[in-house]
Amino acid sequence: MDEFSFIRAIKQDYYNQSSLIKGIGDDAAVIRQGTRDIVTAVDTFVEGVHFSRKTMDPIHIGYRALAANLSDLAAMGAEPAFYLTSIVIPSSWSDNELLDVIKGMKQLANQYKIDLIGGDTVKGSELTISINVIGYVLQEKCFYRHTSVPGDVVFVTGTLGDSQAGLHILTYPNEYDQKEYFIRRHRMPTPRIDFARRLQKIKRVTLNDISDGIANEALEIAEASDVSIHLIDEQMPSVKSFQQFPDTLQYQWKYFGGEDFELLGTVAELEWEKVIEAAIETDTPIKKVGYVTTPLETTNVILHKDGKEILLEKKGYIHSR
Amino acid sequence: MDEFSFIRAIKQDYYNQSSLIKGIGDDAAVIRQGTRDIVTAVDTFVEGVHFSRKTMDPIHIGYRALAANLSDLAAMGAEPAFYLTSIVIPSSWSDNELLDVIKGMKQLANQYKIDLIGGDTVKGSELTISINVIGYVLQEKCFYRHTSVPGDVVFVTGTLGDSQAGLHILTYPNEYDQKEYFIRRHRMPTPRIDFARRLQKIKRVTLNDISDGIANEALEIAEASDVSIHLIDEQMPSVKSFQQFPDTLQYQWKYFGGEDFELLGTVAELEWEKVIEAAIETDTPIKKVGYVTTPLETTNVILHKDGKEILLEKKGYIHSR
Repeated sequence: MDEFSFIRAIKQDYYNQSSLIKGIGDDAAVIRQGTRDIVTAVDTFVEGVHFSRKTMDPIHIGYRALAANLSDLAAMGAEPAFYLTSIVIPSSWSDNELLDVIKGMKQLANQYKIDLIGGDTVKGSELTISINVIGYVLQEKCFYRHTSVPGDVVFVTGTLGDSQAGLHILTYPNEYDQKEYFIRRHRMPTPRIDFARRLQKIKRVTLNDISDGIANEALEIAEASDVSIHLIDEQMPSVKSFQQFPDTLQYQWKYFGGEDFELLGTVAELEWEKVIEAAIETDTPIKKVGYVTTPLETTNVILHKDGKEILLEKKGYIHSR
Repeated sequence: MDEFSFIRAIKQDYYNQSSLIKGIGDDAAVIRQGTRDIVTAVDTFVEGVHFSRKTMDPIHIGYRALAANLSDLAAMGAEPAFYLTSIVIPSSWSDNELLDVIKGMKQLANQYKIDLIGGDTVKGSELTISINVIGYVLQEKCFYRHTSVPGDVVFVTGTLGDSQAGLHILTYPNEYDQKEYFIRRHRMPTPRIDFARRLQKIKRVTLNDISDGIANEALEIAEASDVSIHLIDEQMPSVKSFQQFPDTLQYQWKYFGGEDFELLGTVAELEWEKVIEAAIETDTPIKKVGYVTTPLETTNVILHKDGKEILLEKKGYIHSR
């Protein structure tokens, strides 16, 4: 059972708690309490599945695990405040390595003045890190993935594919341009918290963070909003030195690579200027990369590339039409 | 590094968030938001460490994992509202087994009308379940472990050692009295939520849930409150058929067994009647089992047994004096 089926299977038909605004089905859950809403999400990372000791030091493992969680809060427009973590640690790990994992989390947490308020550790056979983040957002100010409408522009922050390029460099040591840049983007990604917070002044923004590749994230928005999302290949942002990699890898990493923890959003054409303002204020690279239409045939994501239309499907499966 | 050292190592010197009332160091963290405080905790369970497929079905694994978390909220006097779960699942497990784990959680969750609001699953080599619970309590009404004072009476809910007796029965199949009772107590323990909620009318209650054996929990209260806790062996509650097991096992299970998820508390002598009322109203067995004094030599837990005083130390290490 993949994550999508699991989520569908465990989703409740109805919720008991009247304070719940959003249950399972977005980047985080939202609870109404007082004047602010509480936003909370959980993510788990397993050695050998999400990361490898060969390419990450313990400090990076901690840093990136928290970054991924904060990225979920960014996608909701929430301000992170707290986190709790559970770590399953193999007996082969030393205390110092375990503490380095925590150090990596704290390094990122300190940037946002987030507090670690709960922790648990237990011995096991493979390193597993589970993090729960808790943040705040003003009432009715959360960004969901079901609010996109035809006519919206599609935008993306930062550049795509960098994380996978960094992993490639670490996996196949060689001479590369901007080696350190790509490695850093893989090991210590930047959740786009500040940028997302500045979008608050816009009435409606649809937002997802790119943890599983832009194709999958776009599809999530398309399905939740019942629209089609069109992406224009030549507008996709990547750093110049990204071109040093073979075309097939570039394509794979950009659309299906994941773990860049950039934001993918859609917004009314009229509000686009405000998105740019938020980007400038927070020094965030931003790029218009497509547009939203009514659903074609079935809800989907269409990549316009070299004069062709490519249907981007879930899990990286590519179907030309 | 054991859990205690880990907790000490990761605890922040100060917290940034002004809404935080209690960080690391109790059964759960407490956040002030609106008219109610939010209480949240995390716990992780690993196959082979916390449970075995030989003695638990998937449904019990899920049930007990959530029960343990709810027990943390009970120990804070909080009303549970939500939970999120992350499950690392071995590829040898079927989808149905995974869904049975969730079914176990939901069975217990439904009793308290708690909603599952976040989930994550990933393949790994050993089953690992991480649960984060979120609950509410009225402002200033949380029960902490640092509030015990000399002169308090010490009480405990339910009966002790049942869970370990159940595990023993499952591990060494044989003829036993009340077999099903003990097995059920092991697989499907009852968090004392309702009883703890009824204690709200008492001004000061010190409370811990018994997940690691009463000796360890008493020591946590003694250390946090800077008192000594005296436990009277002959007053310790156990079911009659508990006596079918050898004395040494009875002793081990009662004081160091853990996972009974009963509550250990201390309260002013004058308030004892109110504790009994709460117990009657919620049909909860309750027993006065000791008293609190100023710390003797060092903060500690003293068991009065057969005319002797036994110093109960952390992790089940027993030192006679």
